[in-house]
Amino acid sequence: MKTILRKATKQDLQGTLDLVNELALYEKAPQEVTVTLADYETDFDTNVFDILIAEQESQIVGIAFYYMAYSTWKGKMLYLEDFVVKEELRGHGIGKLLFKAYLEEAKKLNVSLAKWQVLDWNEPAINFYEKYNSTIEKEWFNGKILSKDFEGILELLK
Amino acid sequence: MKTILRKATKQDLQGTLDLVNELALYEKAPQEVTVTLADYETDFDTNVFDILIAEQESQIVGIAFYYMAYSTWKGKMLYLEDFVVKEELRGHGIGKLLFKAYLEEAKKLNVSLAKWQVLDWNEPAINFYEKYNSTIEKEWFNGKILSKDFEGILELLK
Repeated sequence: MKTILRKATKQDLQGTLDLVNELALYEKAPQEVTVTLADYETDFDTNVFDILIAEQESQIVGIAFYYMAYSTWKGKMLYLEDFVVKEELRGHGIGKLLFKAYLEEAKKLNVSLAKWQVLDWNEPAINFYEKYNSTIEKEWFNGKILSKDFEGILELLK
Repeated sequence: MKTILRKATKQDLQGTLDLVNELALYEKAPQEVTVTLADYETDFDTNVFDILIAEQESQIVGIAFYYMAYSTWKGKMLYLEDFVVKEELRGHGIGKLLFKAYLEEAKKLNVSLAKWQVLDWNEPAINFYEKYNSTIEKEWFNGKILSKDFEGILELLK
């Protein structure tokens, strides 16, 4: 089946959110998706992120969701926040097409670095990245605070 | 000694780069800092990032370097890319002031999430974040590709 690659328009945001939910389920955390379609629409309009869409017969079958980030060591970097192919269509090269398009975008935007994260148990994904000579770093932890906790933690910091 | 907190101006970028280099040394990777002052200046002018500066007697003693990022699960997030206090001044509450100012900025910007990374062996930093009720996630690896490798990997992806 023919796969078309293109940049997302606002009309693709619902389909993107559907795939994000699908990936969250695969990553065993569907309840963690709290963003709304309205959030995506507002933030897409203000260019906070961009999306590459893989499409077959007018259906979205994969996405590469990225934004401009910054490394204090390297300078501009293109951050691949979410990269997903519909589960039943994996293993047919759609991910490879998307990843290639993402790297081409990174090259075009003249960034110093392409960066993303992968779960430590997600072997198929790690194998994919290593096959394409990516560096996988295992020595970093993520720290985070949800907005609902900002007030309480600001009190502690007084 | 009195600590003043303020947003960075272009004049602070050299002092910021000096501190970034100091942190890279602490993180045992000084050769990894390849960004230039000119890069910082260009990218500061185009609002790619912002910096909170802690100052004592007109000297920069700490920085919180952040930018707007995006979570496909949560929406807008403020990413703390670098957070450093001059080594000889640690343990005097400067980090606490900076972290508080960063969280206040996150609150003001109405993001859903504040996020950063910390090295797995950096116990003082992990203790600091845990003291302030942050979540530390240990199950993610980082993937990355440097721009010098884009061409070669794009060839592999053909």
